[in-house]
Amino acid sequence: MNAVPVIPDSVPVAGGQLVRTQGVTAPAGFRGAGIAAGIKVSGRPDLALVFNEGPDTAAAGVFTTNKVKAAPVLWSQQVLSTGRVRAVVLNSGGANACTGAPGFQDTHKTAEHVAATLSDWGTETGAVEVAVCSTGLIGDRLPMDTLLAGVTEIVHELAGGISGGTDAAYAIMTTDTVPKQAALHHDGKWNVGGMAKGAGMLAPALATMLCVITTDAIATAEQLDEALRNATRMSFDRLDVDGATSTNDTVLLLASGASEITPSQEDLNAAVLAVCDDLADQLMADAEGVTKRVTVTVAGAASEQDALIGARTVARDSLVKTALFGSDPNWGRVLAAVGIAPIELDPDRISVSFNGNPVCIDGVGAPGAREVDLSGIDIALRIELGVGDAEVSIRTTDLSHAYVEENSAYSS
Amino acid sequence: MNAVPVIPDSVPVAGGQLVRTQGVTAPAGFRGAGIAAGIKVSGRPDLALVFNEGPDTAAAGVFTTNKVKAAPVLWSQQVLSTGRVRAVVLNSGGANACTGAPGFQDTHKTAEHVAATLSDWGTETGAVEVAVCSTGLIGDRLPMDTLLAGVTEIVHELAGGISGGTDAAYAIMTTDTVPKQAALHHDGKWNVGGMAKGAGMLAPALATMLCVITTDAIATAEQLDEALRNATRMSFDRLDVDGATSTNDTVLLLASGASEITPSQEDLNAAVLAVCDDLADQLMADAEGVTKRVTVTVAGAASEQDALIGARTVARDSLVKTALFGSDPNWGRVLAAVGIAPIELDPDRISVSFNGNPVCIDGVGAPGAREVDLSGIDIALRIELGVGDAEVSIRTTDLSHAYVEENSAYSS
Repeated sequence: MNAVPVIPDSVPVAGGQLVRTQGVTAPAGFRGAGIAAGIKVSGRPDLALVFNEGPDTAAAGVFTTNKVKAAPVLWSQQVLSTGRVRAVVLNSGGANACTGAPGFQDTHKTAEHVAATLSDWGTETGAVEVAVCSTGLIGDRLPMDTLLAGVTEIVHELAGGISGGTDAAYAIMTTDTVPKQAALHHDGKWNVGGMAKGAGMLAPALATMLCVITTDAIATAEQLDEALRNATRMSFDRLDVDGATSTNDTVLLLASGASEITPSQEDLNAAVLAVCDDLADQLMADAEGVTKRVTVTVAGAASEQDALIGARTVARDSLVKTALFGSDPNWGRVLAAVGIAPIELDPDRISVSFNGNPVCIDGVGAPGAREVDLSGIDIALRIELGVGDAEVSIRTTDLSHAYVEENSAYSS
Repeated sequence: MNAVPVIPDSVPVAGGQLVRTQGVTAPAGFRGAGIAAGIKVSGRPDLALVFNEGPDTAAAGVFTTNKVKAAPVLWSQQVLSTGRVRAVVLNSGGANACTGAPGFQDTHKTAEHVAATLSDWGTETGAVEVAVCSTGLIGDRLPMDTLLAGVTEIVHELAGGISGGTDAAYAIMTTDTVPKQAALHHDGKWNVGGMAKGAGMLAPALATMLCVITTDAIATAEQLDEALRNATRMSFDRLDVDGATSTNDTVLLLASGASEITPSQEDLNAAVLAVCDDLADQLMADAEGVTKRVTVTVAGAASEQDALIGARTVARDSLVKTALFGSDPNWGRVLAAVGIAPIELDPDRISVSFNGNPVCIDGVGAPGAREVDLSGIDIALRIELGVGDAEVSIRTTDLSHAYVEENSAYSS
């Protein structure tokens, strides 16, 4: 289904090397596991565990802004209010959203069972130290007998090597076609790792999107919170596939302190952002039905907020997205889309380019605009408003037959 | 392409009978024509004229809220500022949007040529009495020699019978599969007629949508303005197929006074609304790629504004729309969609039904929710918020393969 080719495995970034074959167990002090517990009817992996061996258990979290929040979100928000997380248990195969008080009890029981099993295993753990994430169809109860048996099993599968993190990344996939991991080895001294899932419902204020980031740096919960909020604002919040925001979105950042290094806030921010930004890129490339990887940039805006709103409005426009699916440089639709954004603009000063080729200059079509070749996979759409200096880019995708197909046949 | 069956030709409404086989020439004092002038490469009808013989020429207009406005919109806004319109010339085959100053001159020339030809024909007319509407691809200049020759021809084709209005309704079609007309004969004494086009870009603040409404009632420009704004707010503004708003949207209301009847403002409002509402219904049924006619109702909202925003948010949600295309009663997506609307709500008090079948009660799935049959063409989606008394319905459609197909291949 996915026409976008595999991205390279390793890229240099400021502060170190970013590796895409490692995830949450790349930093010291973390173990991970992923198993097929039987929650998914397909028999595919559906239960993941990330365990922080310490010595620290500081943590921060960012959750969906949807007013309809799944039970695991309501639970994990309580857990994160303590600033400490020992373990994160994640299941695919069911969102446990819109399941009422019984659904919340299911989440609570899951956390209690994880805590009890970890305690039996030698690490005294309370349920309030266990965050829970779920993803899948909204509205159905989870098969709790299956899930709790899976929890017992997965605690005994916890592995410290790279493979434990990779197993976990596989187990949280829903309509994702590939697992998403990234790890940054900062000067060879401390590390940040992460995994994410989220093929559909990618949206301005997170996606359904579960994401766990780990680090072996020493940092307080407050420092982690700053780093995580900065990173999500600049990465996941600027990824918008279809304007939808899920009931289950959760991004967690856990620190073990096992490296015994205390980075500056600036370095911590940069490293967490680098990992989140790379995961966002992987989420775009594997979004449901994607045939084009699109970056919409609005430049010359009166403010960053205006640039963000303008880029998001164009990135969500169904007529722009279907034109891009058809490799059609239909710049008129781009102007029509940006023209409805509630931002400062002058129609006679808007210029548009596709992949560097001007198609509209000062509100009027450029010569050869209809002949610009957009048959490639990557499309950079740039809109210059000419009323200021602010610039923001949003990652999005085209709107394809495959998107309609996947989403019209999801629950039935 | 269009899976939605033909609607009945005549329905009773308050104040009279609504007929769908008559349009702008149903009221006395109006002539209409539609011809193939050669603007469209296909050779189909592409030029329409509506002429008001009087004795009055009072008029009102509502235009796109898009900040990027086509040349004919900028021109017609000036015309309507006088409160008088003698004739409306409309072309399909080109939007004349994003064409700069030369494009505006083209519109001006068109109005001047209509005025000169009508003057030659015996009705002294100034260019400032001629409104111009265009629809089609954004960004290209119109073939002016062809268009002006067509104007000369069409003035001589003007017919007073029903057929003149019907010819005009055909000539403004783009991707529409059927012409849209409606006429209300009010107590057999005075009449309102209308035509519209607009298969794509149907949006909250009008569609690309050209619409001309006529009446033989006596009314001032101010009375017409009130009637038209009320009608568009309650009809076209509550039609939202894909959230897009065109550069060319125009709705005009012209009064000839030929019936010599002066209705009350209340009766005028009701009659204009009845015609606009019926045209909005026809636009929904013929929207690009539609396979489902969907009404999204939000009830029990804290305010009418909250109900409107909530219904519009759900009506625009790609995941809800693809589920409806798949006849999937996926109420979880409905909750996820309404949960991101910036309105007052309590997730535990939301109830949802499809075609009267409860699928979610107080935020939790109802028994049998997944088995509700949505295989029919009409889907009534009702969301009860339980926090107030306000209720608003939005007309929309599903998101189908045909929508993607039509819109990925429009200009190329």
